Amino acid sequence: MSFATPQDVEDAFYDAIEEADVDAMANVWLDSDKVLCLLPMAPLQIGLERVLEAWRAILTEPRRVEIEIHHVQWIETGDLAIHFVEEHLSGPGQSRPSPPIYAINIYRQGGDGWKLLLHQNSPVPPPPGIPFPGASAPRP
Amino acid sequence: MSFATPQDVEDAFYDAIEEADVDAMANVWLDSDKVLCLLPMAPLQIGLERVLEAWRAILTEPRRVEIEIHHVQWIETGDLAIHFVEEHLSGPGQSRPSPPIYAINIYRQGGDGWKLLLHQNSPVPPPPGIPFPGASAPRP
Repeated sequence: MSFATPQDVEDAFYDAIEEADVDAMANVWLDSDKVLCLLPMAPLQIGLERVLEAWRAILTEPRRVEIEIHHVQWIETGDLAIHFVEEHLSGPGQSRPSPPIYAINIYRQGGDGWKLLLHQNSPVPPPPGIPFPGASAPRP
Repeated sequence: MSFATPQDVEDAFYDAIEEADVDAMANVWLDSDKVLCLLPMAPLQIGLERVLEAWRAILTEPRRVEIEIHHVQWIETGDLAIHFVEEHLSGPGQSRPSPPIYAINIYRQGGDGWKLLLHQNSPVPPPPGIPFPGASAPRP
């Protein structure tokens, strides 16, 4: 299955997470040793094989999650599209919402339509007063 | 001053931090309301004016820092260049090195050469056994 727009890939990516669908996740990513995935507090994964191996481990866990995406910034040019989003995650039985997570998703257009090239998460600052490792580290 | 390559911008960006040079920092960024800067545990800044205001506050602190950059991944195409790097920061009097920080730097080529369009940091996972807020949050 190929994707006609970057947004189609993005929808499929988050659907694959919500539905814990390993095959759908595999179809989202560009077939390249350049793809890169950095999830919160997880080791950096580079190259399709390692990225999919990491996702396979995540998606075969029994835990289910729902994700709501807020768009923050789009930069699209030629064969690259950069979407900066805020991910709001929730799971069944969760008493209060998790803090949102920032993500940058970069899509590339090739012969097979648009595919995901890079996904990087960053935490959103915690409310004042909550200690955070590294908060006292030197900038930036 | 204009930059002939994305790497020239990157060098100038980190030099501006090390030298706490507000003017040099201002020269690095693309003049656009699309520029985006996410520093560790700091609020997201969008648009040149807000990005530079945040850097001005950081760079006028008395604290000095040295930064060593390890390249992890380069993706360059047309008028966009994506550099994924590991930042190793150290300050005077620091007894042990800070944990490295991942950063994605995205550069754009325009009429004025290459400029910085986006800078996003992500923490590297702490060693096992160190608690981290959000580590128990649902994926991704």
